[in-house]
Amino acid sequence: MCELLGMSANVPTDICFSFSGLLERGGNTGPHKDGWGITFYEGKGCRTFKDPEPSCQSEIAKLVKAYPIKSVSVISHIRQGNRGRVCLENTHPFTRELWGREITYAHNGQLSNYSDLKPEFYRPVGNTDSELAFCWILDKIREKYPKRPSNMAAVFRYAAKLADTLRAKGVFNMLLTDGVYVLAYCTNNLHWITRRAPFGKATLIDADMVVDFQKETTPNDVVTVIATRPLTNDEQWQKMSEGEFVLFKMGEKI
Amino acid sequence: MCELLGMSANVPTDICFSFSGLLERGGNTGPHKDGWGITFYEGKGCRTFKDPEPSCQSEIAKLVKAYPIKSVSVISHIRQGNRGRVCLENTHPFTRELWGREITYAHNGQLSNYSDLKPEFYRPVGNTDSELAFCWILDKIREKYPKRPSNMAAVFRYAAKLADTLRAKGVFNMLLTDGVYVLAYCTNNLHWITRRAPFGKATLIDADMVVDFQKETTPNDVVTVIATRPLTNDEQWQKMSEGEFVLFKMGEKI
Repeated sequence: MCELLGMSANVPTDICFSFSGLLERGGNTGPHKDGWGITFYEGKGCRTFKDPEPSCQSEIAKLVKAYPIKSVSVISHIRQGNRGRVCLENTHPFTRELWGREITYAHNGQLSNYSDLKPEFYRPVGNTDSELAFCWILDKIREKYPKRPSNMAAVFRYAAKLADTLRAKGVFNMLLTDGVYVLAYCTNNLHWITRRAPFGKATLIDADMVVDFQKETTPNDVVTVIATRPLTNDEQWQKMSEGEFVLFKMGEKI
Repeated sequence: MCELLGMSANVPTDICFSFSGLLERGGNTGPHKDGWGITFYEGKGCRTFKDPEPSCQSEIAKLVKAYPIKSVSVISHIRQGNRGRVCLENTHPFTRELWGREITYAHNGQLSNYSDLKPEFYRPVGNTDSELAFCWILDKIREKYPKRPSNMAAVFRYAAKLADTLRAKGVFNMLLTDGVYVLAYCTNNLHWITRRAPFGKATLIDADMVVDFQKETTPNDVVTVIATRPLTNDEQWQKMSEGEFVLFKMGEKI
């Protein structure tokens, strides 16, 4: 299994605090030592930092933890490999261009009997079930929407429907974003929290770290964080149920 | 104009020395302050570090300079923007997946009258002439080779032919790679050098830095570096001529 982390915010926000907690699970407080990655959207562009090294040891992870990159949409993943060996091409998140937009995806879980997934348009570079599933989702979206529709929320709802098909093949927890919308799809393990004024303090479970969000934010900020397991022990996280999806835009559930 | 840097090697080699010289041109010894990027291939996977910040100031560039990522194929670019504003989505290199392979590209120059380039399959995310030209090249390759051919050298030769069409529209210096082959295409400004035993010393033009390659290599290493302008002042760089292309594999010109 792996751990997912996502963020949706209405103002460019750094994810250093949450990412610090996640990193510890990459070989320290958790067994997810088979690489990690994080994708930040800035405008229409995005950039990904990834490393097949355990996140708790990675030099690049240290930089990302210390250097506040501000973004409204982020997806991150730390891997404990099952299908596919530990190497860069099997490291999440995965990004592909669709209609001139960067689409980014990360998956937690494991699929079986997926030989019927035969994407033509997008092809996996590595050999994980995860990337294959991503290519299949994008193929199906492209088939249904040859041109970019104005209603992008409908595209994400369709992606959630496709995820139902994948859930029938095993465990499929997913984060998917185009930089504006962030979709969280749950099979068995996904939590989220929306922080807004009045902001309080929060304490990381995995590292000795407290943040006072009131000092870091303005009263209008709305920031949602999605994670496999709650990252803080003094806040109320929403647990998602099997087959449930939640779509976020600008930090708000829509 | 921008500056390009590429590497092709027969063993995973770090590019810290050459990259250190290039970075100085990003706002220090050169005017290329509108962002920078570098893509490293490791196996079939690749990872890109990019920043719309000037490279001479970028925290991420400092990491890349100090942290030796070993690769057999690298493409890097520092930008002095002409078409398209300074932002992440306009920052080179650009990467797209084709037949389950990551293809990476960077361009130096400027095109005019390119409204007839209308790629359908791959679409630009940003608004540079460079990314549009990349999408057009990939569309044409995909049209000619719906499946991945066994002869990849022929694909790169076809890409060079496509580059001739683009050169008719302005200045088109290009680096293109699939992680195995590295293609260098010249309109007016591209140089390369192949280093092999017996290795000697080299002195950077743009920074106070000397390297003794004999200490860094084994006798079988073959490493080619491609750059807009020579990076060292005590080695013999090959100057490319207009319309010339050179294809490298494992450090060797083929």
